[in-house]
Amino acid sequence: MSSSSAMVRILIKGGKVVNDDCTQEADVYIENGIIQQVGKELMIPGGAKVIDASGKLVLPGGIDTSVHLEESFMNATTVDDFYSGTKAALAGGTTMVIGHVLPEKNESLLEAYEKCRHSADSKACCDYALHIGVTWWGPKVRAEMEKLVRDKGVNSFQMFMAYKDMFMLRDSELFQVLQHCKDIGAIARVHAENGELVSEGAKEALDLGISGPEGIEISRPEELEAEATHRAITIANRAHCPIYLVNVSSMSAGDVVATAKMQGKVVHGETTTAHTVLNGMQYYHQDWSHAAAHVTVPPLRLDPNTPNFLMSLLGNDTLNVVGSDHRPFTVKQKAMGKDDFTKIPHGLPGIQDRMSVIWEKGVIGGKMDENRFVAVTSSNAAKIYNLYPRKGRIIPGADADVVVWDPEGSKIISVENQVQGGDINPYEGLRCHGVPIVTISRGRLVYENGMFTCAEGSGKFCPLRTFPDYLYKKMVQREKVLEIPVLKKGNIIEKVEGWLKINQSCTNLS
Amino acid sequence: MSSSSAMVRILIKGGKVVNDDCTQEADVYIENGIIQQVGKELMIPGGAKVIDASGKLVLPGGIDTSVHLEESFMNATTVDDFYSGTKAALAGGTTMVIGHVLPEKNESLLEAYEKCRHSADSKACCDYALHIGVTWWGPKVRAEMEKLVRDKGVNSFQMFMAYKDMFMLRDSELFQVLQHCKDIGAIARVHAENGELVSEGAKEALDLGISGPEGIEISRPEELEAEATHRAITIANRAHCPIYLVNVSSMSAGDVVATAKMQGKVVHGETTTAHTVLNGMQYYHQDWSHAAAHVTVPPLRLDPNTPNFLMSLLGNDTLNVVGSDHRPFTVKQKAMGKDDFTKIPHGLPGIQDRMSVIWEKGVIGGKMDENRFVAVTSSNAAKIYNLYPRKGRIIPGADADVVVWDPEGSKIISVENQVQGGDINPYEGLRCHGVPIVTISRGRLVYENGMFTCAEGSGKFCPLRTFPDYLYKKMVQREKVLEIPVLKKGNIIEKVEGWLKINQSCTNLS
Amino acid sequence: MSSSSAMVRILIKGGKVVNDDCTQEADVYIENGIIQQVGKELMIPGGAKVIDASGKLVLPGGIDTSVHLEESFMNATTVDDFYSGTKAALAGGTTMVIGHVLPEKNESLLEAYEKCRHSADSKACCDYALHIGVTWWGPKVRAEMEKLVRDKGVNSFQMFMAYKDMFMLRDSELFQVLQHCKDIGAIARVHAENGELVSEGAKEALDLGISGPEGIEISRPEELEAEATHRAITIANRAHCPIYLVNVSSMSAGDVVATAKMQGKVVHGETTTAHTVLNGMQYYHQDWSHAAAHVTVPPLRLDPNTPNFLMSLLGNDTLNVVGSDHRPFTVKQKAMGKDDFTKIPHGLPGIQDRMSVIWEKGVIGGKMDENRFVAVTSSNAAKIYNLYPRKGRIIPGADADVVVWDPEGSKIISVENQVQGGDINPYEGLRCHGVPIVTISRGRLVYENGMFTCAEGSGKFCPLRTFPDYLYKKMVQREKVLEIPVLKKGNIIEKVEGWLKINQSCTNLS
Amino acid sequence: MSSSSAMVRILIKGGKVVNDDCTQEADVYIENGIIQQVGKELMIPGGAKVIDASGKLVLPGGIDTSVHLEESFMNATTVDDFYSGTKAALAGGTTMVIGHVLPEKNESLLEAYEKCRHSADSKACCDYALHIGVTWWGPKVRAEMEKLVRDKGVNSFQMFMAYKDMFMLRDSELFQVLQHCKDIGAIARVHAENGELVSEGAKEALDLGISGPEGIEISRPEELEAEATHRAITIANRAHCPIYLVNVSSMSAGDVVATAKMQGKVVHGETTTAHTVLNGMQYYHQDWSHAAAHVTVPPLRLDPNTPNFLMSLLGNDTLNVVGSDHRPFTVKQKAMGKDDFTKIPHGLPGIQDRMSVIWEKGVIGGKMDENRFVAVTSSNAAKIYNLYPRKGRIIPGADADVVVWDPEGSKIISVENQVQGGDINPYEGLRCHGVPIVTISRGRLVYENGMFTCAEGSGKFCPLRTFPDYLYKKMVQREKVLEIPVLKKGNIIEKVEGWLKINQSCTNLS
Repeated sequence: MSSSSAMVRILIKGGKVVNDDCTQEADVYIENGIIQQVGKELMIPGGAKVIDASGKLVLPGGIDTSVHLEESFMNATTVDDFYSGTKAALAGGTTMVIGHVLPEKNESLLEAYEKCRHSADSKACCDYALHIGVTWWGPKVRAEMEKLVRDKGVNSFQMFMAYKDMFMLRDSELFQVLQHCKDIGAIARVHAENGELVSEGAKEALDLGISGPEGIEISRPEELEAEATHRAITIANRAHCPIYLVNVSSMSAGDVVATAKMQGKVVHGETTTAHTVLNGMQYYHQDWSHAAAHVTVPPLRLDPNTPNFLMSLLGNDTLNVVGSDHRPFTVKQKAMGKDDFTKIPHGLPGIQDRMSVIWEKGVIGGKMDENRFVAVTSSNAAKIYNLYPRKGRIIPGADADVVVWDPEGSKIISVENQVQGGDINPYEGLRCHGVPIVTISRGRLVYENGMFTCAEGSGKFCPLRTFPDYLYKKMVQREKVLEIPVLKKGNIIEKVEGWLKINQSCTNLS
Repeated sequence: MSSSSAMVRILIKGGKVVNDDCTQEADVYIENGIIQQVGKELMIPGGAKVIDASGKLVLPGGIDTSVHLEESFMNATTVDDFYSGTKAALAGGTTMVIGHVLPEKNESLLEAYEKCRHSADSKACCDYALHIGVTWWGPKVRAEMEKLVRDKGVNSFQMFMAYKDMFMLRDSELFQVLQHCKDIGAIARVHAENGELVSEGAKEALDLGISGPEGIEISRPEELEAEATHRAITIANRAHCPIYLVNVSSMSAGDVVATAKMQGKVVHGETTTAHTVLNGMQYYHQDWSHAAAHVTVPPLRLDPNTPNFLMSLLGNDTLNVVGSDHRPFTVKQKAMGKDDFTKIPHGLPGIQDRMSVIWEKGVIGGKMDENRFVAVTSSNAAKIYNLYPRKGRIIPGADADVVVWDPEGSKIISVENQVQGGDINPYEGLRCHGVPIVTISRGRLVYENGMFTCAEGSGKFCPLRTFPDYLYKKMVQREKVLEIPVLKKGNIIEKVEGWLKINQSCTNLS
Repeated sequence: MSSSSAMVRILIKGGKVVNDDCTQEADVYIENGIIQQVGKELMIPGGAKVIDASGKLVLPGGIDTSVHLEESFMNATTVDDFYSGTKAALAGGTTMVIGHVLPEKNESLLEAYEKCRHSADSKACCDYALHIGVTWWGPKVRAEMEKLVRDKGVNSFQMFMAYKDMFMLRDSELFQVLQHCKDIGAIARVHAENGELVSEGAKEALDLGISGPEGIEISRPEELEAEATHRAITIANRAHCPIYLVNVSSMSAGDVVATAKMQGKVVHGETTTAHTVLNGMQYYHQDWSHAAAHVTVPPLRLDPNTPNFLMSLLGNDTLNVVGSDHRPFTVKQKAMGKDDFTKIPHGLPGIQDRMSVIWEKGVIGGKMDENRFVAVTSSNAAKIYNLYPRKGRIIPGADADVVVWDPEGSKIISVENQVQGGDINPYEGLRCHGVPIVTISRGRLVYENGMFTCAEGSGKFCPLRTFPDYLYKKMVQREKVLEIPVLKKGNIIEKVEGWLKINQSCTNLS
Repeated sequence: MSSSSAMVRILIKGGKVVNDDCTQEADVYIENGIIQQVGKELMIPGGAKVIDASGKLVLPGGIDTSVHLEESFMNATTVDDFYSGTKAALAGGTTMVIGHVLPEKNESLLEAYEKCRHSADSKACCDYALHIGVTWWGPKVRAEMEKLVRDKGVNSFQMFMAYKDMFMLRDSELFQVLQHCKDIGAIARVHAENGELVSEGAKEALDLGISGPEGIEISRPEELEAEATHRAITIANRAHCPIYLVNVSSMSAGDVVATAKMQGKVVHGETTTAHTVLNGMQYYHQDWSHAAAHVTVPPLRLDPNTPNFLMSLLGNDTLNVVGSDHRPFTVKQKAMGKDDFTKIPHGLPGIQDRMSVIWEKGVIGGKMDENRFVAVTSSNAAKIYNLYPRKGRIIPGADADVVVWDPEGSKIISVENQVQGGDINPYEGLRCHGVPIVTISRGRLVYENGMFTCAEGSGKFCPLRTFPDYLYKKMVQREKVLEIPVLKKGNIIEKVEGWLKINQSCTNLS
């Protein structure tokens, strides 16, 4: 009922529409879940609900590219399901989330997918899509990836270079997965840490008697991320597959990504809210619970310049997207690792606070302007996941996923009054200038001034198409140009030039 | 007559509209010089001229950010005026040009501007704007810059670190000019070569008996450009002024720009068609005229990887814009330097061929996709010069500067059949796949299948506004954040932190 | 007989003594296998053989840090044993070689060592030492490494990141081996190529029908070396072990080494004669035998700037040593891979020509002066392998391993008149300016103007001591400084600082 | 009398001799001012004074490459003359200093030189040499440089890119000076800061009301040093002149030097004791005198990682030499700038403490081993200034400039008990482990356990020869290789290749 009543016509008046390329004063008229008109002095039918956006910004709803809802992980289950999680997202200005499905070793990808869909479809309050983890490899996985892509609306897979003996793929496996991704036009998300050395580091730390939360950083320092990032990019280049690095968390890994881009490689990067704001000194907090609450992987970094650096990389397009990597656990769940940091479940919440925190530290902090803010919180995700401009942009014809943002407003983040679950909030006490005051999901006014009007299950699964232009168009053309020449005997020079081109295609910018 | 008849309503049907962020199948309806509708199954009034764009792309008209028309330079006058030059532009798919006004030392900037306007207004066939050279410095120049910005529609100035004893500014002068640019919100274009060493190099080369065109590269190798680029960026950072480097011509200068961007500095770069396609081996051609025809500054580079590298920098947004730097001279004019390469007038034509050449080497070559092509030939220029989205984008409400582009067509470039003036074309014989078949300027169909229907003087001067968001929004916010703290005695730490921030603002990404 | 008669007293008169730090006119007097005096107007006993070195240079004998003699590898046996190989070394100005012992998987390291010693001791004509390959891992290997170091005069081990399913170690194994090397003070030599991707690349190339020698470069391009180099350095840094990379063969791997050195890491690098002189175009030679003759790993690189770049890295101390990696096979042996490049035995000869080729391309080529030549061909090896200044320097008390070098002489390299075995010489036809005219090994005049006077088996095994200062002194001090603080509860800050130091020790130059 | 009695024979027994390449247990026998023997079980005449060096190190005496004694500068005169200054040097383990002669604009270089010699010859207690400032330019300066080099024992000149309107040379002048240096084989020392921007920065700071010592860093931040360093290297490369940068003080300038070395350029760098130990927070000290005492140029840097970074660059040979840049002023002299930081005389003391401070922070700190310590405090200076191995090495035949160093001893630095003049010591309170206990200058025992036995004027001027191999040998060979080919008409390719080589000689490592 509330949902259908919210489905009426809406006119957002007097605001400034912020897209990723420019800002313009314009009204926005919404009907049937679609943005119908954007401009001044619009001609609209009567009876529309009018939202006064004077002095406010009108943004494309956020797209959170990495959330873990009702996920079982490291012997714990995240404290948000698709209902509470997506509600929290809406409260924070996010109107679409992409969740993770992480099959166990030897588990069917398809079955894991179906199980997740079954639960999510009846709970989600906003649009959602799913990444599927490729946590093992073989002919069955290969076939299921194809089926997921063809029939199930999946266009992204996530692979792990860490989590040895659990999710980790060896280099040859990763290479074959990336080749397959490229053949089927999927987005290859890679978590890059050297899993073998992480494992050695953990043993070494425990041997030294380091069992507290600080062990997470000591056992997997940033050089292990930089190494794996370099390796992942190399493997992807060999496989001629665009690569998308997730959870980029350190200055040195950021430098590796930047260098690859300078060499012309097709590389994209996602960081998380936590990594752009917090540093690893948290792990040395005297209160074990406080320290453990910050355990995530890759860990927060000790170098205090890291968060600013990562935020600047978002600002200059070395990194493209910031997700929340929302994976909320309670203090009690974290306490499973009281005597052994390797047993503390990895994860931080963030689905609700992502937009405001990035605005505060990124826009107010002078690292990016409001247009770039829209890019990294919404438009780039839409481009990469092949939803653009249906999502990620306020234009006629687009889905009416819209947020009215008050750049003069402010709020203090606190676990006390959060919508998301759990008893931990890493941004506790942070005052954010810049808050969502109205959220519209597919034309439904679902959140206004702290009040929800969304129904459980009113969100829709949003199938994603393969071969997004944003990743693949240049790649495909490049392969065409560099096509392997017919190897004619006696035509050595031509052969050489052909191969030269192929081998140097991405390396040397030729 | 032809022009007014061309002013009717136009419907471009069946094409794919290419903007810098995505490509969509859509019809485009134009009326009153404005794009009125973009979409499918448009409702439009009858009587519109219909252009069939099936299988074609519909692009925002090109913006050529650097052209020299009816300019006197090095004892020669360019062989195109605003009539022939803009006509050639339209034939090539460019619908706006920004010309240069280069006052002599001690000449009034205002008078030079007025003189140019007087001539250009009656001749231009497409929209145009003007950069003014700040070729000397003093209170009068300072005052005239303000007047030009306030009253004359100028928002960009060009400064030279080369051309010693002619246009060159010393570092302290350049610093003051940049401070002034920032105060008035202007775009600071800087030509970066070390003029003192260029001058020493020229003397040395002539002393060694090197008098031919190869002297241009020998006397001003790329290290002089990389050095001055580094210096220019340093000076701009000290002046807290966004900087826009012109004619970026070498790999090492490109690296300097990339590094500065990684450090968070607000730096933009323009290269030229010639530098992204040709290399300096031309200067060693046996035919003096051929060699001399390629004399430009900075010179084409000997390292044969240079053009591909620069094209890749356009592809990955290290460089933002490619202009033609059109400055056409005849073989005879070039021959003034027959016995002394320093007397060969600097300049190459390119206004007509820029779009097709970049398509061929950039898009067909796998360095950028069609959207990035639109970015570097049109949208980015519109953003930087504060015209966006009125220009540089195909959306309702924008100026109807539109090109129908045939990605399957091809033509061979030749001086024989060129519209632009002169008897030289550096791309002679190049087959370009990708050609403009229809050009529409402000809603007037001015060029179709090789036929012109534009009237002399039908183009308009296009005044430009200061403080473009694209350059200044982040810069202004950053200054606000980093505001100098009140220096309270006894509050040393705070003072230190304040100054730390100020001094490291751009350097360290803090 | 000839050897004992050669053992008389020798006076080298009138030459210039070249050490790695300076050049001085001085006579050199030798007796009892030892350099007794260096200087002018020496007081020496009568009866010494006088060698006139006027206009000549007197150099420390070369140390070739990587030779494969009577080695079985890829179903072939190298065509030099310790007799012919060391004879060729002496003819080229090299007076010590370090050979490889490569145990099979599960083979005892000790037994492999003894087998090699048994054969070599009776054949070698100059001093030699041995590297032992750690080609598999387990408690037995660990114990044998200790024994080799303690009792057998071995101080270096070689590990492989390539040769999957043959010699390759996984990351965790390599980490443990490096930890062990550091504990026992050994030199850890690492061959860095990503073996998993090499293997994938070979399969892919063969599938594409590429079976010729060019497959070697196509299947293992330089990015696989750069990747593994980065990984190896990371693993070594985690293990706090100095690392010594062998066969550095590409510009990108060289850059990785340079970056690590700038970060303060203890990294050394060895390249080979072939890689500093030849490029990968050889693999496209029409004559299969010619192409196959150049098959080695890492392969010669296609980028023609590579050899010069590597030579410059030797010049500026980014690389420290150039070995021959002498592994000679015949045309017939190479032909085992006629239909499948993966079956062509890897290896090039070079033991005889190393010194002259490096002089020609390095010294004559302006990349290094004569002192640096001595450093990279002799002194650095002596320092690294803990023989300095007993070897690698001409001073009183040092072993009399001395070469009289004619910087004005010249010779043309040819397989026709080579001392080393086989029917292949990759430097065929190269004219070298700079040739050895007299070679003295341990005080014995063994080679003079093309005539040998050395006896089979007159060379000695030269036991090497652990913990060379050159690699370990700074490392050990650093560990002392960074010792892990006692973790006191309630003393969090101190703990943090301690760990900060430990984790950043090498990374951040702190 | 004491001096002649000190001139007797000396035997240093039982110590470890530390040279820059290795450490060896050996006795050292000295007679007639020369090291006669180094080794064990020496045969020496009776009557020698025996110094017990058990447990001690025996080092080549330090060479301090930059000291300012009895210099008038910024309206103040340094508080040490050649007597007190060199006495302090000896007390600290330094046995040779190179002083600065800084002629005023238009002052004769020769006269300034003679004036300095006149005073110094009668006062110096240790060997000394002189750098001459080229603070202006013209034919007279050119001629005097030649005379100084030919007749006066000068082989180094110092040029300034800062000190506008005082010492600063313009780029074209600097280029010509460097060309001249190269022609006469001199060492070109360059102080690199952008003088024009320093001047603008000072004005700006004073305008903002910043008049305190912190103004020194605010007005000349490190980007001005990095910029000028890049420029200086470019100018030197154009002039084909080796370059020696002085007072390298920042991480970014260090990076510029490292990059140039990687490109094969002949670049050397000197930093100062103060810059490798202290940071710019000192300028914010509440006590004006304390802050002012640290004013030097380039200023100490705010980034607290700077000192460690510079020390590491000494450790990895990116920087070659550390001088004291001793220029002592009193608190009262500093107070001339009480109200205007630009009037605070630039300079810090350091001649006495250089060796112990570098030992403490460099060797004890794990940045370099004892051999590298000898390199950066002594041997490299000897090599660069063409004194090696007469100085900078402990070998028979070398000058007996020797220090017995106690690596287990310690002392606390304090102005209270310093030998050098003035009432300021920036290392006040620093405990140094590693102290000189005996200093021998040219065979005279001049300092032992805190007691001096040196006579005023007993030091000698040490004439320096041109064209040091260490800087010039590779450079000269390179020029020979790259000689300009005869330009034959019709032989274009050859011409091109020739020029390619010339232009890319240093840039591209070709």
